[in-house]
Amino acid sequence: MAGRTARRRIMHIDVSAPGTGETLLVHRPDLLAAEDPLEIRVDGRPLAVTMRTPGDDIDLAAGFLAGEGLVRSACDIASIRICRESHDHVGASPDGAGSRGADQGNVAEVTLAAGAQIDDGQVRRNFLTTSACGVCGKASIEAIRVRARYDVAADQARVDPRVLTRLPGRLHDAQRVFARTGGLHAAAAFGADGTLLALREDVGRHNAVDKVVGWALREGRLPLAGCILLVSGRASFELVQKALVAGMPIVAAVSAPSSLAAELADEAGMTLVGFLRGGSMNVYTGSSRICAS
Amino acid sequence: MAGRTARRRIMHIDVSAPGTGETLLVHRPDLLAAEDPLEIRVDGRPLAVTMRTPGDDIDLAAGFLAGEGLVRSACDIASIRICRESHDHVGASPDGAGSRGADQGNVAEVTLAAGAQIDDGQVRRNFLTTSACGVCGKASIEAIRVRARYDVAADQARVDPRVLTRLPGRLHDAQRVFARTGGLHAAAAFGADGTLLALREDVGRHNAVDKVVGWALREGRLPLAGCILLVSGRASFELVQKALVAGMPIVAAVSAPSSLAAELADEAGMTLVGFLRGGSMNVYTGSSRICAS
Repeated sequence: MAGRTARRRIMHIDVSAPGTGETLLVHRPDLLAAEDPLEIRVDGRPLAVTMRTPGDDIDLAAGFLAGEGLVRSACDIASIRICRESHDHVGASPDGAGSRGADQGNVAEVTLAAGAQIDDGQVRRNFLTTSACGVCGKASIEAIRVRARYDVAADQARVDPRVLTRLPGRLHDAQRVFARTGGLHAAAAFGADGTLLALREDVGRHNAVDKVVGWALREGRLPLAGCILLVSGRASFELVQKALVAGMPIVAAVSAPSSLAAELADEAGMTLVGFLRGGSMNVYTGSSRICAS
Repeated sequence: MAGRTARRRIMHIDVSAPGTGETLLVHRPDLLAAEDPLEIRVDGRPLAVTMRTPGDDIDLAAGFLAGEGLVRSACDIASIRICRESHDHVGASPDGAGSRGADQGNVAEVTLAAGAQIDDGQVRRNFLTTSACGVCGKASIEAIRVRARYDVAADQARVDPRVLTRLPGRLHDAQRVFARTGGLHAAAAFGADGTLLALREDVGRHNAVDKVVGWALREGRLPLAGCILLVSGRASFELVQKALVAGMPIVAAVSAPSSLAAELADEAGMTLVGFLRGGSMNVYTGSSRICAS
């Protein structure tokens, strides 16, 4: 288990020195964004392994379970412990506090609360979708509709486009590890007035979103009604799905959305913004929520 | 099933018009990169579902199987058919020809050659890694070592850094769908002299690499000895793993690598280049292959 970054000695080559025709070659140390597997176990049973950047692992485990529709609120979880091996607990956070300091292992052991249990059928449906019922975008959207618990279509949030254009800069300023490694995606929850609620980083964009949703679950803030999910890269179907399951009515991405991301946002009554950069944006769905105040 | 792009009507907002304080608002059509699930079945059994951009689906299925170490060469595959439903074949390419025209469904039905069979234990090891044997970067690298068949450490390829710096521009010029949607990752195989061998695009970066590897498998070109894999984004552990299993000694990324990507490249004797842009690059491992000719 490493930290959030790892140091390596590298060779930097620059062939662009104009005129000289010479190649500059320098050996120097460099920081890389850490990547390491995390196994998520529920009541002792392995559920999933994800390659992630260590840090906020309790948020990641909680958000993953919420995103898959397997838990509804913090009440469903008795504890999440991060450990190196099955019986080697190095961090414990049953009350949801202190996740940053406790991240010292590659196994997240989730213990469900008494009465809470995971629906095995749901797990199979989520992870082993097959074409028995039709493999296509429409079937995927239908499967998500079943899992989503909140009516985001009814969310009355309004956001000023000038507020939106300021968010990428705030995301970038708040990224701690990216500034040093250039290697991390970021996801953040903002209020409709542009207030930063939570920001998380990861080599995997889906993990960064899971960490934000896990933060909300542990803080008792689900659904994130009236909130904006901002992601540093592209908006895929999977990211819009995670926002929907967390009850967020607005998803904004610095880069392009995919066709299925826009279809899902449209079906669910969400607002989807892409290419949010340099003072402009494209609004793909739900444009009625974007209005100058 | 859609094509590689989908058209949507969007609202473009620009708040950056200087001085006027007015917000420009235009409704116009826009092209999005298509995203749709593909189920890969082997001899009638569902193996995996991946969200991908339709196109080169036969390459994707072949490359996925090769990357997982489940097939070794084109001889292991009798046919790959792309169909809408189990018995609704709309495209057939038993001889590996004509994949582009045949991509008209969301199920890839792979029929193995007589004598070839998939090791169920291998499938479980690949998809259901658990911490019984230790979940950590080292265990992940060890699992890949078992799967890799080619000795890339012994590959004598040499590449001029000036050749490398020209590759991102060639990748960008050759991307067909990205230019219209801004929404796709690209992966390409180049010869050590900078010759473009194959380029594939996808909303998922791992799919783009699978499509390149699938092309090589179907062309009988595995291992891709002496070749460079170039990816448009970051270099994760998963991408380096796919290059290793395909026998490619050099991986170059336009953006940052992760720590585990560098560790795997180091262990395997591969050359890993990152931040390849604007005439310069960082060489993380295997720098002896980078030398001016």
